[in-house]
Amino acid sequence: MMPDLDAIVADIIATMAQAEERGAVAAYIPELAKVDPAQFGIAIVTADGRMITGGDADTGFSIQSISKVFALTLALGKVGDQLWERVGREPSGNAFNSITQLEHEQGIPRNPFINAGAIVVTDVNLGGHQPRVAIGEMLRFLHYLCEDDSIAINEAVAASETATGFRNAALANYMRAFDNVRHPVDLVLGSYFHQCAIEMSCRQLALAGRFLMLDGRHPGGGRVVSPRRARRINALMLTCGHYDASGDFAFRVGIPGKSGVGGGILAIVPGSASIAVWSPGLNASGNSQIGTQALEELARHTGWSVFSPPVVED
Amino acid sequence: MMPDLDAIVADIIATMAQAEERGAVAAYIPELAKVDPAQFGIAIVTADGRMITGGDADTGFSIQSISKVFALTLALGKVGDQLWERVGREPSGNAFNSITQLEHEQGIPRNPFINAGAIVVTDVNLGGHQPRVAIGEMLRFLHYLCEDDSIAINEAVAASETATGFRNAALANYMRAFDNVRHPVDLVLGSYFHQCAIEMSCRQLALAGRFLMLDGRHPGGGRVVSPRRARRINALMLTCGHYDASGDFAFRVGIPGKSGVGGGILAIVPGSASIAVWSPGLNASGNSQIGTQALEELARHTGWSVFSPPVVED
Amino acid sequence: MMPDLDAIVADIIATMAQAEERGAVAAYIPELAKVDPAQFGIAIVTADGRMITGGDADTGFSIQSISKVFALTLALGKVGDQLWERVGREPSGNAFNSITQLEHEQGIPRNPFINAGAIVVTDVNLGGHQPRVAIGEMLRFLHYLCEDDSIAINEAVAASETATGFRNAALANYMRAFDNVRHPVDLVLGSYFHQCAIEMSCRQLALAGRFLMLDGRHPGGGRVVSPRRARRINALMLTCGHYDASGDFAFRVGIPGKSGVGGGILAIVPGSASIAVWSPGLNASGNSQIGTQALEELARHTGWSVFSPPVVED
Amino acid sequence: MMPDLDAIVADIIATMAQAEERGAVAAYIPELAKVDPAQFGIAIVTADGRMITGGDADTGFSIQSISKVFALTLALGKVGDQLWERVGREPSGNAFNSITQLEHEQGIPRNPFINAGAIVVTDVNLGGHQPRVAIGEMLRFLHYLCEDDSIAINEAVAASETATGFRNAALANYMRAFDNVRHPVDLVLGSYFHQCAIEMSCRQLALAGRFLMLDGRHPGGGRVVSPRRARRINALMLTCGHYDASGDFAFRVGIPGKSGVGGGILAIVPGSASIAVWSPGLNASGNSQIGTQALEELARHTGWSVFSPPVVED
Repeated sequence: MMPDLDAIVADIIATMAQAEERGAVAAYIPELAKVDPAQFGIAIVTADGRMITGGDADTGFSIQSISKVFALTLALGKVGDQLWERVGREPSGNAFNSITQLEHEQGIPRNPFINAGAIVVTDVNLGGHQPRVAIGEMLRFLHYLCEDDSIAINEAVAASETATGFRNAALANYMRAFDNVRHPVDLVLGSYFHQCAIEMSCRQLALAGRFLMLDGRHPGGGRVVSPRRARRINALMLTCGHYDASGDFAFRVGIPGKSGVGGGILAIVPGSASIAVWSPGLNASGNSQIGTQALEELARHTGWSVFSPPVVED
Repeated sequence: MMPDLDAIVADIIATMAQAEERGAVAAYIPELAKVDPAQFGIAIVTADGRMITGGDADTGFSIQSISKVFALTLALGKVGDQLWERVGREPSGNAFNSITQLEHEQGIPRNPFINAGAIVVTDVNLGGHQPRVAIGEMLRFLHYLCEDDSIAINEAVAASETATGFRNAALANYMRAFDNVRHPVDLVLGSYFHQCAIEMSCRQLALAGRFLMLDGRHPGGGRVVSPRRARRINALMLTCGHYDASGDFAFRVGIPGKSGVGGGILAIVPGSASIAVWSPGLNASGNSQIGTQALEELARHTGWSVFSPPVVED
Repeated sequence: MMPDLDAIVADIIATMAQAEERGAVAAYIPELAKVDPAQFGIAIVTADGRMITGGDADTGFSIQSISKVFALTLALGKVGDQLWERVGREPSGNAFNSITQLEHEQGIPRNPFINAGAIVVTDVNLGGHQPRVAIGEMLRFLHYLCEDDSIAINEAVAASETATGFRNAALANYMRAFDNVRHPVDLVLGSYFHQCAIEMSCRQLALAGRFLMLDGRHPGGGRVVSPRRARRINALMLTCGHYDASGDFAFRVGIPGKSGVGGGILAIVPGSASIAVWSPGLNASGNSQIGTQALEELARHTGWSVFSPPVVED
Repeated sequence: MMPDLDAIVADIIATMAQAEERGAVAAYIPELAKVDPAQFGIAIVTADGRMITGGDADTGFSIQSISKVFALTLALGKVGDQLWERVGREPSGNAFNSITQLEHEQGIPRNPFINAGAIVVTDVNLGGHQPRVAIGEMLRFLHYLCEDDSIAINEAVAASETATGFRNAALANYMRAFDNVRHPVDLVLGSYFHQCAIEMSCRQLALAGRFLMLDGRHPGGGRVVSPRRARRINALMLTCGHYDASGDFAFRVGIPGKSGVGGGILAIVPGSASIAVWSPGLNASGNSQIGTQALEELARHTGWSVFSPPVVED
């Protein structure tokens, strides 16, 4: 039987409103530090097209690293499996902004969902153009996925990151030394910071994730990616989507997800749901404290998990 | 429609017989180095109880690290979630026998499926008894899971590992210094090496994995573990089951699996199948070369993947 | 008895001319890669003011990291022991351009003679001014030490490093993230690359090192630094002056020295001699192959070593 | 003018008696944790044979890692420079008991003065014999150096280390896996722990170090080692003698030294003095807090430093 999502969402909203441990808002990007940590939103799109929302589901937030999922999808569309010559597919065993691994592995980042890997993906997506061309392409891709042309960049956030993004500048320069960043570093970072500063609501984000729920299909018709590619992106989200807490997320929640330091998480139940949650406070691993908890509750109530026999819905 | 497993298995057997790159047999355990690398076996048990086999499916081999799945199951039965105070749940980002991470993280291994983690699990399972008691318990557990009392230890392999297992002795002593190994090191290692030296065939191994396919149920009736625990063990297999190639296995094959340096892999399709493959040659990451390839083929032909919508079977 | 330095130098020139293993010229700075590797020069200034030279002792070369000794001396003059809050005094155990250590130690480089440490020293020396001010000060300091106003920067080398110095840019940005670089990164690197591109001959470099031989005194009168500071700079040269081959240099040669990837080495025998050698080919650790060998020969012939009873000279 | 050592020593004794920050006694070896931290002793032997002592100069203490100097001397006597195929000569950049570096460098320890390196040296000194043979040889060597047959092992300390030395057991087993420990691990550790448990007073230790002050000569006549070997051992003491605080000791004190976790330090002024200090409390790097401070005072008062022009004595 299909779980009663309206009731479950209402329950989660109530529970999360009372949660005391809400994490800390990302302080290293000044513009993000201003966000009110009391907010929480959730949006679920099901395979049959229903949309269930709760809380601040229509408030825009900075998607930050969740953009790495869409950037990866675009890069695979451009260069296909050649991408894997420049980025690995393994969990990193390190923090999201670690540079140690790059030294040990000759400038090849471990996966496309840590900062270093996403910077290489951004370099691929630049393709010899100016950042504004690449950013325009990314926005058009999101407009298409969400069927919503209002998605845009928060320029204040982009400026804030540009002014303080020294660790990302270190990563980009380091990989440039190994020729694994090939455009001028400032262009790559300009593109990267703008992509991270895209603002979306939970509702929009859940819509954007539908193709990963549907084996690559766009619900409006046609294919975004092949079934194999959709599966593989889901696999990367599960093994690498939560930085060095990916194993814990798989253990506790059990579905592919990608978090961002803006406090959002996009999570996918293949064949069943595309889910977005958002709450700005982060836990020690840099993932949304309340968002993670909400997804754990949701998985418990619905039985959604890629590690159990499929829920029979009738 | 249910895939025609007999035809698929026959096809895989034929393909693998012709594979030229077969990997290298583990050389660091002298007794394993003697095994004929040309062998390949496969066994699939489905949720409805069918058994499909191919190749050397009834030849016994050393299960090695696959035993870590069963040892973990036993330890969780003994101490429950307290286990996670002594072992992490994250992919390691290092080789299976790495000691570096232990130094950085104060003697707490990253997960129960790398050697250090499995040694802690073994320490838990000893529970103040002699190794033969713990080993006896493990064998009885496997006899129950497989409904087959013939499963036993290959004493020559156990002796071979005891004589050469210096890196494991280093790991155990290192964790003893942090009080994360609590029995005398030689008892813990004695138990660990015997557990690794258990010999099973693909047929037996596939039978042993059924409870992970069935959300924790024993097909003969009753529960082995709770549904939540079964899901969580599957999650750990997916994120950590192939050492530092776990991400790649999830990407290419897309189902939870646990490999051993004896060349075996146990793989689980929740709700659909428990699969065992075996071929002794290992790839650079220490996982069966041909076994991995066979599982990739199997997943491709059947559509089995935890990252795509469930296959509708009728 | 004072060793016959003329004869010893003649002997060394002859031996080095025949050396077959001459190392490889630094390839990562394009301008340096053009230098003829067959060259070798040596200059020795004794405490009583004699100058003994041999080979290409008057050919200018890029002093590169040897500039770190003079930059450190200037920085200590500006901020004294406060410098040690921002830079350590320990050998690094890593390559000269490693970034791993910075991650483990929160942006504090291990010593002022690896690149990261020298970048912090450069940041201190900038003191809120433009790079040309800091560079001007450095050149005036060298003019004073050598009593020679002809010392200048090779602008082609500076430009070459600026265009390719991505690893140094990574280091500087990384430390900027920890607020251990405080001026804009491009200004710090501009100053750093120009300082490395100073061109000096062996004769000039040996003259510049006299204050370290003379417990801080300028042979022309007055003090460059206090005796204690001179001793301490010599100590840092001995423990950290040859990157991750510093221990080997102390073991084989036994006197404080600082090498540069231009192939020069400045070496100090306290109370006895200031020595400069130069040959462009580098060994695997990034130190002059022939230069190191020449200093080992010189130490053997003269008995100069800080680790043996002083040579009685009459 | 020769410094007035009697007055200087009296002054140091008075100063150190009032020092408030005295460090913490090594807690990881239970038997050492019992030692009274208020004790302090000093003994200086000069090149002309004078002995100046102060405080608890005749109280025996566990020499611990200072034994590594004598073990190295014996091993070089047995296998000469072949030793350097199995042990490096570089500062480690890590704690004394770190295992990380061994993994990165294939079981070759960085130098003979960290635990891993000393274990290899012990393995060399075993030479196929039982530990008691090697230990007997070591004791006879110390009897000869000190002209004092009373030096012996504190068996309670040896037993205490054997019972708790798990990190050393980890190091030994790890190197055994790389064939860089070649005798059974328990024999090597038995020998190693007994060697560390040798008990000496400051007076005895200063006498034992005389050959390193005298370019290898025994003051009673004959040679202990060649001048070149004496210099090289001094060089290793300077670059590696204080674990990961070796650079700081060279910077602050400026003479070769080797510390032990028993609180002793042996320090050598080539041509001038062999010095032993002892106070049980350790600083954060594992070196005697008061002992280091006393040597810094001594160096300041006497002008002794290998990094300044030799003190003219008349």
